[in-house]
Amino acid sequence: MRAVQIRELGGPEVVIVRELPEPEPGPGQVLIDVARCGVNFADTLMRENGYLAAATLPLVPGLEVVGCTAEGLRLAALIDNGGYAEKAVISGDHAFAVPDGVDDTEAVALLAQGLTAWWLVNHTACVRPGDSVVVHAAAGGVGSLAVQLAKMRGAGRVIATASTPAKRALAMELGADVAVDTAEEDLTTALCAANGGAQVDVVLEMTGGRVTDQSLAALAPFGRLAFYGMASRVEPAMISPRALQGRSASVSGFWLMHAFDRPDVLGKAYSELAAQVAAGELRVVHGGDHPMSEVQRVHAELRGRRTTGKLVIDPSR
Amino acid sequence: MRAVQIRELGGPEVVIVRELPEPEPGPGQVLIDVARCGVNFADTLMRENGYLAAATLPLVPGLEVVGCTAEGLRLAALIDNGGYAEKAVISGDHAFAVPDGVDDTEAVALLAQGLTAWWLVNHTACVRPGDSVVVHAAAGGVGSLAVQLAKMRGAGRVIATASTPAKRALAMELGADVAVDTAEEDLTTALCAANGGAQVDVVLEMTGGRVTDQSLAALAPFGRLAFYGMASRVEPAMISPRALQGRSASVSGFWLMHAFDRPDVLGKAYSELAAQVAAGELRVVHGGDHPMSEVQRVHAELRGRRTTGKLVIDPSR
Repeated sequence: MRAVQIRELGGPEVVIVRELPEPEPGPGQVLIDVARCGVNFADTLMRENGYLAAATLPLVPGLEVVGCTAEGLRLAALIDNGGYAEKAVISGDHAFAVPDGVDDTEAVALLAQGLTAWWLVNHTACVRPGDSVVVHAAAGGVGSLAVQLAKMRGAGRVIATASTPAKRALAMELGADVAVDTAEEDLTTALCAANGGAQVDVVLEMTGGRVTDQSLAALAPFGRLAFYGMASRVEPAMISPRALQGRSASVSGFWLMHAFDRPDVLGKAYSELAAQVAAGELRVVHGGDHPMSEVQRVHAELRGRRTTGKLVIDPSR
Repeated sequence: MRAVQIRELGGPEVVIVRELPEPEPGPGQVLIDVARCGVNFADTLMRENGYLAAATLPLVPGLEVVGCTAEGLRLAALIDNGGYAEKAVISGDHAFAVPDGVDDTEAVALLAQGLTAWWLVNHTACVRPGDSVVVHAAAGGVGSLAVQLAKMRGAGRVIATASTPAKRALAMELGADVAVDTAEEDLTTALCAANGGAQVDVVLEMTGGRVTDQSLAALAPFGRLAFYGMASRVEPAMISPRALQGRSASVSGFWLMHAFDRPDVLGKAYSELAAQVAAGELRVVHGGDHPMSEVQRVHAELRGRRTTGKLVIDPSR
């Protein structure tokens, strides 16, 4: 079968399409024909060995696939790796039936990104009616869904941040009440100003560095910052528990890997999200459907933060 | 009226009973005859100017009182200060009716300590059925109530820590499943061992220093550490948001002062707690009913951590 295999760490040039043997399903697993595979920012970090888990080479990347089993069952699945391929092995625990009315890009977008957005909004930050919610990288895969999910949970004000006017316009289209340029030098003041001068209740943060630090400083009493990534690859400042106490604030980390141990919750979340998409209540931003043969260009664009919306690759091309 | 007034910062010797004019109620306030005033650890820190809020001298300490209005209404109230006195001014926003079947010590114990325990268990750490919950200082005012409230929320295992065999025995009497000596050198291992070898879901922490650090290291994925005090006066280590992400863990601060802005929630919490005490479902540990004239000894004992349960002083003696 055709598949992408990384044999050495490096830039986009190490992501090469090759002919490989089909993977073999183990107990509790099943082989599917991959219709589309999601491309994630994590894939680009893994390629450079900068991700949380140490990559083992050679590696077929790809954490999320949609496709059909031999019996014709259409499933979307989170996998450890192996998605950039014509065929992939998925585990029953992390595979979800895809309802009609949800296309392949949507089915894949609801996996790592949809489930992360769902978990952040419903569990990690536990958005409550009336909350002011800052969504950083609001035009991104997780952010674009989190903006909408926060509104559906009754957030009083969703404050989106993004780095370009086009991305900020997209966040507004998705339902954000106001959009802020991430490049604002004093982001603390900018976020509070966007909230009518008040400190904010919730921050969903995946940038790192000063964005984390300045967002934390914008938290109201009982405010919650959910930290789920570090796209800038710059560590935020360390946090003093006593400073958190002095403001009754909270900082929570979230890594989807830990949610893999709760397949019941993931299953419920996925079917909720899929039903909202099918009903037209939740919009997935399509970021482009690319031939697998162009994977190097796709990686370079994603890493360069020049993309918007969910990117998928088609292994048949 | 007789009242305690602190005119200079220092040890227990600066806490002196004097004759002072009665305070005058402002708008929305009412004067009560103080039946009992609660003594809190915070009072001893404030005396040394080590508390979060800077104290203004001269100061009548005392944050919680129970007593009757001129109309004979029995109220318990959280106040900014002024409780160590025969009469005190309370604000309608933070005063709660005390039902029959709740004695004066209980009425006072359900204020700063009861409301803190309630908030920690129900909001900050949001204990869920089946959770393993570590309660540090489990024989203390907050801890003794938190052990019981966590059990009532369905905690699977409550792991109490305390510094003496007598305090650990008390925690077990209150419903803890297991008790650990806080002095254990490797508290991380001791807490996990007490949880059947597994990491823990929730830690309620008010000690600081290595107790915070080693407790944080014992958190399971999605674990929550609620930091609500620093009795040892030793700062815990700073926390890396990225390390929290790598474990999907969370650290939350809690300071009751911020809850003052949510009188509706406090009112609901107080009446819930008072009903549980009146029904015999929640036990307040009485720590001694002392004459106000012995306040210096009471402060010295509390500061030396030689007390157990709720301490109150009686301004009439």
